[in-house]
Parts: sequence; C-alpha cells; structure tokens
Amino acid sequence: MSTNYVRITPLGGLSGIGKNCTVFETERDIVVIDVGLQFPDEELLGVDLVIPDIAYLQENQKKIRGIVITHGHEDHIGALPFVLQELGAPIYATPLTRGLIEVKLRGAQRDAAQLKTLLPGSQITLGDFSITPYHVTHSIPDAVGLAIRTPLGLIVHSGDFKIDHTPIEGEALDLAALARFSAEGVLLLLSDSTNAESPGYTVSESELVDTFEQAFAAAPGRIIVTTFASLLSRIQLVIETAEQFGRRVAFAGRSMEQNTRIAHDLGHLRYPPGTMATLDQVNRMPDDEVCIVATGSQGEPNAALARMAQGRYRDVQLKEGDTVLISAKAIPGNETAIHRNVDDLFRRGANVIYGEKAGIHVSGHAAQEELKLVLNLLQPRYFMPIHGAYRMLQQHANLAMSLGFDPEHIFVMENGDRLKLTHHGAEMEESLELDDVYVDGSLVGDVGATILRDRRALAAEGFVIARVALTRGMQLAEEPEIISQGFVWIPDAEDLITEARQAIRKMVDSQNDDDAEALGRRIKRRLEDLFYNETRRRPVVIPVVTES
Amino acid sequence: MSTNYVRITPLGGLSGIGKNCTVFETERDIVVIDVGLQFPDEELLGVDLVIPDIAYLQENQKKIRGIVITHGHEDHIGALPFVLQELGAPIYATPLTRGLIEVKLRGAQRDAAQLKTLLPGSQITLGDFSITPYHVTHSIPDAVGLAIRTPLGLIVHSGDFKIDHTPIEGEALDLAALARFSAEGVLLLLSDSTNAESPGYTVSESELVDTFEQAFAAAPGRIIVTTFASLLSRIQLVIETAEQFGRRVAFAGRSMEQNTRIAHDLGHLRYPPGTMATLDQVNRMPDDEVCIVATGSQGEPNAALARMAQGRYRDVQLKEGDTVLISAKAIPGNETAIHRNVDDLFRRGANVIYGEKAGIHVSGHAAQEELKLVLNLLQPRYFMPIHGAYRMLQQHANLAMSLGFDPEHIFVMENGDRLKLTHHGAEMEESLELDDVYVDGSLVGDVGATILRDRRALAAEGFVIARVALTRGMQLAEEPEIISQGFVWIPDAEDLITEARQAIRKMVDSQNDDDAEALGRRIKRRLEDLFYNETRRRPVVIPVVTES
Repeated sequence: MSTNYVRITPLGGLSGIGKNCTVFETERDIVVIDVGLQFPDEELLGVDLVIPDIAYLQENQKKIRGIVITHGHEDHIGALPFVLQELGAPIYATPLTRGLIEVKLRGAQRDAAQLKTLLPGSQITLGDFSITPYHVTHSIPDAVGLAIRTPLGLIVHSGDFKIDHTPIEGEALDLAALARFSAEGVLLLLSDSTNAESPGYTVSESELVDTFEQAFAAAPGRIIVTTFASLLSRIQLVIETAEQFGRRVAFAGRSMEQNTRIAHDLGHLRYPPGTMATLDQVNRMPDDEVCIVATGSQGEPNAALARMAQGRYRDVQLKEGDTVLISAKAIPGNETAIHRNVDDLFRRGANVIYGEKAGIHVSGHAAQEELKLVLNLLQPRYFMPIHGAYRMLQQHANLAMSLGFDPEHIFVMENGDRLKLTHHGAEMEESLELDDVYVDGSLVGDVGATILRDRRALAAEGFVIARVALTRGMQLAEEPEIISQGFVWIPDAEDLITEARQAIRKMVDSQNDDDAEALGRRIKRRLEDLFYNETRRRPVVIPVVTES
Repeated sequence: MSTNYVRITPLGGLSGIGKNCTVFETERDIVVIDVGLQFPDEELLGVDLVIPDIAYLQENQKKIRGIVITHGHEDHIGALPFVLQELGAPIYATPLTRGLIEVKLRGAQRDAAQLKTLLPGSQITLGDFSITPYHVTHSIPDAVGLAIRTPLGLIVHSGDFKIDHTPIEGEALDLAALARFSAEGVLLLLSDSTNAESPGYTVSESELVDTFEQAFAAAPGRIIVTTFASLLSRIQLVIETAEQFGRRVAFAGRSMEQNTRIAHDLGHLRYPPGTMATLDQVNRMPDDEVCIVATGSQGEPNAALARMAQGRYRDVQLKEGDTVLISAKAIPGNETAIHRNVDDLFRRGANVIYGEKAGIHVSGHAAQEELKLVLNLLQPRYFMPIHGAYRMLQQHANLAMSLGFDPEHIFVMENGDRLKLTHHGAEMEESLELDDVYVDGSLVGDVGATILRDRRALAAEGFVIARVALTRGMQLAEEPEIISQGFVWIPDAEDLITEARQAIRKMVDSQNDDDAEALGRRIKRRLEDLFYNETRRRPVVIPVVTES
C-alpha cells in the first residue's frame, strides 16, 4: 500500500536560532530529525534552556519509528534528556554523536535509551522512510546529512555543513553522494541557512594553519587558546602547531576535558607522543613551552577563560607576556560578555588576539556560494531553507531565486508550519500552535508568559509589601509596615516610606464598610500611584492585610 | 604666577562605552570637556541611564571655569540636564551642538544655563586654559577637536573624529590646524579609540553615493531608510538621492523630526525645492515616488521602524514591494534587537538591505591608519587613548608603539585614573574612587549594588511571601498563606504550596519560646531549602509574621 503524503513539520530550527527538530510523517510513520535545545535570550529571565514543544509528537507517539541525529552539537541533541521518555523511540547517531549523547543522559535514562550507531553510507529503514546518512564537514567531526527516501521521492536534509575540501580532521563533504542523489532526482531539499547572509565561500580549516603558526611564532610567553569544546579540528590544529613549536598542551575546563577524552577514544583527536600534559605539569615548565586550550570562547562567566580573566582560576594565573587566542566567533547575544572578557584579559597584561579580522577562526557553515553549489548540484523540485532566523531563511530563498528556482516551489516557513507533499505537488497546511518550552531549575514547561511578565516587572523596579494589621473593628492594630526590595534605597527614601504609611493610615481611617480584601486592593492602587508620582518607578505592590 | 601642574582625570569615556567626561585641572582652574551619558547594558536592571560621578567636581566647584562640548551626541551632552546645576559653569558649544543641548534642557534649567557659542578657529580663555576648537569630520555636523593651551604646553583633545576628505556635509577635518599644532609642539594627545580595532581607513561618506543610487535604482516600491537621527550627512545623502530618482521624502519618528528641524534651521540640511513632504502626503503618492526616513536603526522597540515592523505604526503600513535600508551599524549590545527587527520586516514582505556587507553605512570614527596619521602628524610627547572600552584603548596604545612611541609615554587609563603633567614629566597619581551614577525614573544615584542584586534575584526566580498570623500564644491564628509572583505557575504547583504550608505549620507547632522575628527567619530558611530542593529555583522568600 503506497502512502499518499509526506508531511514535514519543523518544531524548531526556524524563525530563531537553535532547538533544531523536524518531523517527517506519512499516514503510518514518523521520523524525527534532531532534538536540540536553545539557549535563552536576555528577555527570558531565569530560564535555563528552551526546548521544542513536542505535544504533536506525544499525540502521535505510536507512529514514531526513530529519532535520527545529524551531529553532536547542543542545538541538535540537547533536548533529548528532557523528551526522550515521551518519544520512546530508538536514537540513531554516528559514533562521536552517540558518545556525546551518552554523557548527557543520566543513569536510568541512559539504560533505557535505545541508542543505535549510524554510519555514513549505510541505510536504515524506519517504516515508510529509508535513510542514508552521508558525510559532511562541519565544526564537529562525525557530522552527517541525510538522504531520506520516502514513498513520494527522495528528500535531502543537509544537516549543518560547509564544503571544506581540505578539512584538518576527517574527510571532505561527500560530494559524490550528492551527485548520486542528484542523478536519482531530489523531490525536496532542506538546507542549512546559518551563513546565508555571508557572501562568497567559507574558508577552509586548513587556511588557519598559517595564521596559527604566525601567532605561535610571535608569542613570547605562554599561549592560551580558547575555542568551542566540540570544535575538535581546531583543537587538533592547536595541538599540531604546539608540537611544531615545542610547546606542550594542557586542557582547562570541564567540557574541554570531557569532549577531548571522548573524541580521542574514538580516534577523532591524535595526540603526538610527549605533547599532552596536565595543568600541573605545564605550570612547572618555561612559559614559552606552554600551550593551554581552555573553555570560555563565548565569555561564559564560569568557563576557564573568564575565571582566568578575573583572577578566579587557581591553576592558571595570567601575567604580562601571555598571549590569548580567541579562536571562535560570537554566537549572537554573547557579544557583550565576550568583549568584557577581552577587556579583562588586557587588564591582566595579556596580549589578546580576537575578532573576525584576526583570521584565527573560520565558520562551520556554508556561505552563499556553497549554498548555491548545493542547490545547483541537487536541483531539487522543492526547497525549504532550514536552520536559521527568518532573515537567513529569506536570504537563502533569495539565493535560490537568483539561480532561477520557481518562487512557488520555495517554502520559507516558521516553526509549526506544515508542508505537505503529495503526488500532485506541495502545499502548506494549517500550522500547529507551538509554545516554546522553558526549562527553569528542575521544572520543565511551567514558566510561561505570566511568570515572565511578573519577573520583568520585578526586574525593572522590585516590589513593595504593605503590611497592614487591622483590629476586628477594621482599625489599625499597629503602624503599617513597608517592606521593599529592589525598589528604592530605603535610607535615602525615608520621606517616601513615611508618606506611604500616612496614605495607608488615612485610607484605613476613612474607610467605611470595606472588607479587608477590598481595602487591600485600594491600598495597592493608592501606593502604585504614589510611588509612580514620586519616583517615576512602578514597583510591584503587594498589600498584606490581616485582621485579628 | 605660573602653574606647577596640569592634571587630567577622565570621569567617563574610558573602560567602557559612553558618558564621556574629562577634567583638566591646574592649581587654580578646572575645565570640563564633554558631559555625556551612557545607555545601560542588560545587567543594569531597570536603570534608564548612566551618568558620570561628578563628586570630585562638586568638591571643586569653585575652580570650574567652563564646560566645553565637542559635539552633540548623547554620549557627550546627555548628562548635562542631570549635573548642570551642580557644576554651575558656562557651557561652550558650536551652534548645532548648542541647539541640541537647548532642546534637552527644560524650562527653568534652560533659562539658567549659560550657553555660549563656540566657533572653530576662535579662542576662549578659561582661567589657565586657552582653548581653540578645530573642525573635525564625524557622524554629526559641527563637531570639533580642541587645542588646549596650558601653562605647561599644548594639549590636543581629538573629540570623536574620522578623516573624511570628501564629506557630504560641511568641510573636511582641519588638517592644516593639526599641522600648526604640530609645529607648535604637542605635549599630550588625547585621541578617539572607538575604531582602534579596525584596520585600514574608514571609508568616506561620499563612497556611499553609488551604493545608495544602486539601492534606489533597484527598489520597485517605497523606500524606507533608517539611520541615526543625528547622522545628518546621511540624511542629506538620502534626500539628494531621492530627488535624483524623483521621490519625495518624509520623516518618521520624533527625534528625526526634531533633529532635522534644528539642522535645517542652522543650514546643516538642504532641502531641494519640492522634495520634502509629510507622511500624509506621501501616503497618497505612487509607491515608487516615496522615500521615508525613519528612526529605529538600533531596533529600539518604540522607534518608527520597529513599530512598522510589528504593524503598530499607523502612518506607514509595510507591504510586499517595500525596500528597507538600514544605514547604520549596531551599537554593541543592540544586535539582538536589530536582528529581531530585520526578521519582522522580512515577515511583512519587505526587502531589507542591512549589515556591514551591504555597503550602505560608514563609520564616523577613525580607523587604524587614520589614528596613526594623527599620531605621526602631531608627534605628541605623551599620549592618552580615550573614548573606548579597555581593549580599544590598548589597541590604540599598540598602534602608537608600532610607530615607535615610548611605551612609558603612553597612558592607558581607566575612569578615575589621574595623569599629572609637571615640568619634570608625566606620572600617574592615586586614582579617584568613582561610582557609576544610575538614573532610574526621576531619581538619580539611589540605585546601587544592593538594589541591583535584589532585582537580579527577583528577575531570575521571583518571590514568595509567607503570611503567618499568630495568636498571642504564638499559635497559628489562621492557615498560613503563600503569595508568589514570578516563581512557579501556581495551578501546577499546588503540591508544593501545600508542602510549604505544612512546613510552616510544623515549625509553629514545634517552636518553643521564639519571638515572631526569629520564627520568621527560621521560616525563611526552611522555605528557601524546600523550594530549592523541589524546584532548583531560589525565589526571594519574605516571611510576614503578625501577632495579634
């Protein structure tokens, strides 16, 4: 029995950055590609993580045949610990990705997880879907794109990729596989839009060899390199350059130690004999024989580099003569933290090499010319830009149109939008209503618009509690008390507090037959007005009226 | 009687961005250069503005002979309304700068202010200081640098500048004046470091003529340009390009209307006959004859462009075919807001031209080669990089060293650091302890570390009030009540609230001779533990214990 449709529903990965998760569905079967998380922006006060809304998958749990993961970055695997139980399906991932997932899952969860190894070139059948992963180059090893054969035709999902013909680690993107898919005929391409705003080609990782050599040659003392803990090709490059210059390499920071251990075990990192050392060991060596690879490329306050910059890292005390290389780009939203970090590093006397113009970082995503190459090579009938904010998706669509693609065959979608492929063509269906799901502390999903609105109000101006104890006769039993936090500096604001108390006293005296609750509401309104008029601030006012 | 020292104390403008304010001082006299404000970063919850700490100036008010303003940007004039009364000195500013200051000062303040007009090439004597402003090019007209003749020698203060040989508005930077200062001998140079991280030269404003023409030629419908309301050369360029393409120009946004009015009155904007129109008028014209110049280049939520992007601007409804040009760069910290804005504009069907690579913006600050030119031309004995975060100052110092300047003669300083020039040389003195002064609502200076810490705690997890009414015998008079905001979603958290109430009941029952206050403290600790264990959140817990 052949199926009549294939429906594609991105639950994440569009409209904004991160939490990649796309649902492929026929009448009978569902396959989920990636289950990532997103780090909250500064408006999501107190929120730790954002994960996709999987209500639709929960409703259709019986149809889920598998979860396929393209690579081991947080925005592709990070939500697994939160939703795995609800999805109850096997997870397919390449060996390194699998290793990174395993360390994320805790005890019982790891035991229950059905983790299966995915190898480029192999084929797995998940109900109506037959999936062949192909090797891509990206800023983490063992990354794949997916050829998804469906009853309606071949769909290619690019994963995150760039076309690096000379990667430092592993092989180049499998262009020959793309050529075969093209020959077979591609119904739909979903392609990475992260760098769709960048003209030209993304530079090869190998181009960094020279700039790292120059930086190492010029450094008079210790060298401290920070990069993403998952950017193993960069770490390999640092290790090889260090060896060349007679420096030993030590890792600093938990995720750096953890990731390099897994990668080394799986053969994705090679340690030249006698090159690796502990921080203890390098601390006893001459400065010009030391290289430290540290976490903290995004200015994270608890990472090794920020702690060094602020003198809070016991094992590495920065000093004049140190050279710090920031081999990473700012993930949008982290600019301020990174800049502050650089300022602090300079203050400690280190020389800092940073920023796009320093030439010590290249992106892991395809730029415009690479995106065009893939579009031209695959010649898909339909095209859906994925992985990116709306403007990036739109730029990717514009690229396709500049190549002559039919605008009617390009689908710039938002999370929850649904594209249905049938024998007659492709069309948008009514969208799913999705909510971002917030993780805050140990609770998932309880923080929503109301709590965030309350937190924003409290963040801006604090609160005031007006404690009013009444007698049974509704007279003041004692002086009203004003408790506040985050509102005004009380020693400077005695007059204001006195005024507030007087206002309460007057209201209690002049009230008639109010009950305590109504009186509380009136006190709240009166104090809000009073505080706004006197300070132009709007603290949250909570009346606590008790009767005895 | 000759003076023995000149002391330079930056109260702002170093270490971070903005609130430029530098004190020049001899035994007898003080001159203040610029009195700017800074916009708060996202950590300064609820803070509206940051202004310099002028305690030192208040203590030495009698010595202040004048305030000299280099140009009309907020980070150079914005703190005047808050500190003018305390400084009690005349303000010297060029005509446009003076006009912009006048609209900032309100009624009585404006009447009391002693505003004096400063003209490039003239000379004013303020006690021991004799000051000659010289014309510089910057992203606002009528900007000056200052030659400050002191009893110890000539000091040059660059103001904000770039070297634009072909500006769109006004004249080029007065290089001949710099040559004369050089011939006279420069004791100390203070020079703008904003673009000290940028290699090469800053492109001339005239280079934008071509890209604007291309953008206008390609636009099928209306053109909406956003830029800084003070970037009058850009606005002039847009007006002239619009005229060339037969489009009429309307302004949108209050600061755009206000600034262009002042600038036009003073001759800094030229309106070709028949080009200007109101929004009402352009709304009745064909789309390809319309150009709107709007506020909102930084993604400000209440500016015209953000309101258009969100469909909240009555006078301009965006539609397919509109072209939006974002002719500005992101001020650090505004990236997220700007990106969100671009996404929303694309969602409304507009084509958006934005970002550095679009070539529709040039900076107003000198890049590395220009900074080197000024250093080499002036050959100052001492050098103090100003206007920039610490890393920028350090980069500027590195540039000077690369030219052969003596590192001992370069002073990379922080706000409050003091440089003393004497007949014997230059040396750092003990620094002033400065606090940033925060404006929040109508109050200035009361928000400090404590209030911000409280606001951060409230922002992250909200608060819980535990209301406990006791009898005189220290027994519960009624059920304890839990009130919370921003903490958990109460309908989902009934069990947690019940548990908290039970914990309180148990504590009241099992207490011995505690007074209410001690009981309150114990309840606070107990609930903090309970909530953290159950939710991994740490709300602010306030016990309100009443006895009747």
